[in-house]
Amino acid sequence: MSTAVAEKKTTLRDGAFGHATALSCRECGHQTALGPFYACPECFGPLEIAYDFPQVTREEIEAGPRNIWRYKALLPVPSDIESSPNTEPGFTRLLPAANLARELGLTRLWVKDDSTNPTNSFKDRVVACALSAARELGATVFACPSTGNLANAVAAAGARAGMKTVVFIPSNLEQPKQVNSAVFTEQLVAVDGTYDDVNKLAQEIAAEEDGWAFVNVNVRPYYAEGSKTLGYEIAEQLGWRLPDQVVIPVASGSQLTKVDKAFRELITLGLVEDKPYKVYGAQAAGCSPVSTAFKTDAPAIRPVKPDTIAKSLAIGNPADGIYVLDVCHRTGGAVEDVTDDEVRAAIVLLARTEGIFTETAGGTTVGVLKKLVETRQLDPELETVVINTGHGLKTLDAVAGSVGPAATIAPTYDAFVATGLA
Amino acid sequence: MSTAVAEKKTTLRDGAFGHATALSCRECGHQTALGPFYACPECFGPLEIAYDFPQVTREEIEAGPRNIWRYKALLPVPSDIESSPNTEPGFTRLLPAANLARELGLTRLWVKDDSTNPTNSFKDRVVACALSAARELGATVFACPSTGNLANAVAAAGARAGMKTVVFIPSNLEQPKQVNSAVFTEQLVAVDGTYDDVNKLAQEIAAEEDGWAFVNVNVRPYYAEGSKTLGYEIAEQLGWRLPDQVVIPVASGSQLTKVDKAFRELITLGLVEDKPYKVYGAQAAGCSPVSTAFKTDAPAIRPVKPDTIAKSLAIGNPADGIYVLDVCHRTGGAVEDVTDDEVRAAIVLLARTEGIFTETAGGTTVGVLKKLVETRQLDPELETVVINTGHGLKTLDAVAGSVGPAATIAPTYDAFVATGLA
Repeated sequence: MSTAVAEKKTTLRDGAFGHATALSCRECGHQTALGPFYACPECFGPLEIAYDFPQVTREEIEAGPRNIWRYKALLPVPSDIESSPNTEPGFTRLLPAANLARELGLTRLWVKDDSTNPTNSFKDRVVACALSAARELGATVFACPSTGNLANAVAAAGARAGMKTVVFIPSNLEQPKQVNSAVFTEQLVAVDGTYDDVNKLAQEIAAEEDGWAFVNVNVRPYYAEGSKTLGYEIAEQLGWRLPDQVVIPVASGSQLTKVDKAFRELITLGLVEDKPYKVYGAQAAGCSPVSTAFKTDAPAIRPVKPDTIAKSLAIGNPADGIYVLDVCHRTGGAVEDVTDDEVRAAIVLLARTEGIFTETAGGTTVGVLKKLVETRQLDPELETVVINTGHGLKTLDAVAGSVGPAATIAPTYDAFVATGLA
Repeated sequence: MSTAVAEKKTTLRDGAFGHATALSCRECGHQTALGPFYACPECFGPLEIAYDFPQVTREEIEAGPRNIWRYKALLPVPSDIESSPNTEPGFTRLLPAANLARELGLTRLWVKDDSTNPTNSFKDRVVACALSAARELGATVFACPSTGNLANAVAAAGARAGMKTVVFIPSNLEQPKQVNSAVFTEQLVAVDGTYDDVNKLAQEIAAEEDGWAFVNVNVRPYYAEGSKTLGYEIAEQLGWRLPDQVVIPVASGSQLTKVDKAFRELITLGLVEDKPYKVYGAQAAGCSPVSTAFKTDAPAIRPVKPDTIAKSLAIGNPADGIYVLDVCHRTGGAVEDVTDDEVRAAIVLLARTEGIFTETAGGTTVGVLKKLVETRQLDPELETVVINTGHGLKTLDAVAGSVGPAATIAPTYDAFVATGLA
């Protein structure tokens, strides 16, 4: 499926997409030339970037910038990517989580904390790759349909790049999320409808208008590759080795499959030792089509109507759900889900043990980690990484009702002593 | 002025405070042994850390961790500081800001973006140093009085360190700021009174109770040194050289004086070339005691009653105000202030040009930068760094009324075309 993004620019410059060689269909394997395409012309399957990687060394990567561009040789971006204005996301903290580990009965646990990205979610990674593709394809407008994190990331990256940026959101979106996008762009469009309506409208505009790059529609193959950097960073920050187990939230499912892809690429390139690892997916019970399919061993994903506080994971018909099943089956992992109450409890648990305030998606992931240990689906003796994809300041309401001051006192020492906190 | 922090631990371990040698009075120069002291026993002047620095090389620093501990040799912390659980703050982005520079008529501008710290403000830096001091002094409780950013940073760091953490806030604090602290600690105490009342209560508790380390009270000399890392990072990230001009917000004034201290230390240690640089302070017009003193060439700071949306800068009687005047006079800089409307406009300006959403303190600093250029107090041809100390998600209300969707439309292509955004 082609779109009009590239009509203004028919020739790509040499190395526009780095060492990427083609767009390859995940279903039938058919290869298409690099361009603004996202569906296979043969079978309509999803397209993914194929590469001819050069020899890359750990030293070359370590000498790179302290952001995702240290891995530019492994991404569909040009070799001079650092010189184009972008938000410089990535290389976020990988924190040892001894307190949480003790609480859950694990031996070695790390939190990969993407809440400290420029707009406080992992979306800055994928948007930076989409922005590069938009530029190289000659797009004149940078855009997305979104309900939150993606809108923030696109609006900020577009502003910094000096590109016209149009962000489409459902009109009933909470005001804080609107403000956090509107502050970056004058072209915020509220749409009376559900997120699905907004998404459909975006697809229509992408097909009709020249030069519009919708990050998660017509440049999606480039965009999605950005999630690989989470996998690269985990391995590098562990001292160039893979963890035994990794727990990842599942919305569309793209992130989970890309972390797996990153691990496999690092093995192939000889950057880490080949070893078994297990990948686990985390969903909220109120939107658990992939988890349900995993548990029932279903051959396909049955779409659901989402009903959960984990709105950034609330994709009822996840495009990459089936590939998530593949990865979890292949590696010996699992997909699990937790209730909204468990999500809330896990947000507070992570905050109180490790000083990290996560959004509902992170609460889902930590909650699932806990459940995986309790149900013995995950080995507590093995080294485990859990990914925190976003910041709690964006979903304050989730815990606002359950935490608060222990006491309210007069401003005197006696009143303080009476609290029993002395 | 001593406090009871160390009563439980009379002997410090060797190297507890790294290469720090004493507490030195800023007023009379009298030296006091390292301990839980913050005022000179001779003249009650503020105490500052004195060091006997070793030879430190750029290479040693560059080989360190990607957080403030890469500068541990220059901080009052032990050499094994990385092994104690902490939030691993610092080494935040130094972003080239070509769009904002163009808008303001500057040649070379950088934004040092501390909004991507673990709890989204520069406070994580100072709190990490205070936590180390609390540990080394044998404190059993980690605490602070605060109205926002500091409360978040202390609550998070204390949780991660596994220390009992008690945070005191005014009871009328906005709910989001309460949640962002309460999520980390059960011991959040709301005090019916102003911030000054809360602060006085904290001083009383520090004097009465054994083992309480109030980061900004009785371990303040150690705490304050954390701000030096902003200066170190700016120099290192510029390729080991100093900028010509730097614009820094002024609340207590500590941060500005510590960035200057950092620059001077780097020169003394031979880590950067000695060259002139100018330091500028930024205040909000509704709380501008230092700016007023600078403009009127007053010999002292006259306290004011704050009335500004830049609440994290709203210190009416700034402890280090007089030292800010010294630094700005010595370096040829200035102190300036802007109105709340200018603060709001600067928040949107920074967001739309560079994709960075700053809090009101950052709006103040960018607003002052603009005013300094317009009034020719700052040379537009010289290389300039402006510091963003915190995240806009914490002060959403400041811009919520002034930004929003450009249009609200039905979910159809025709409705979209009618917006004129196509």
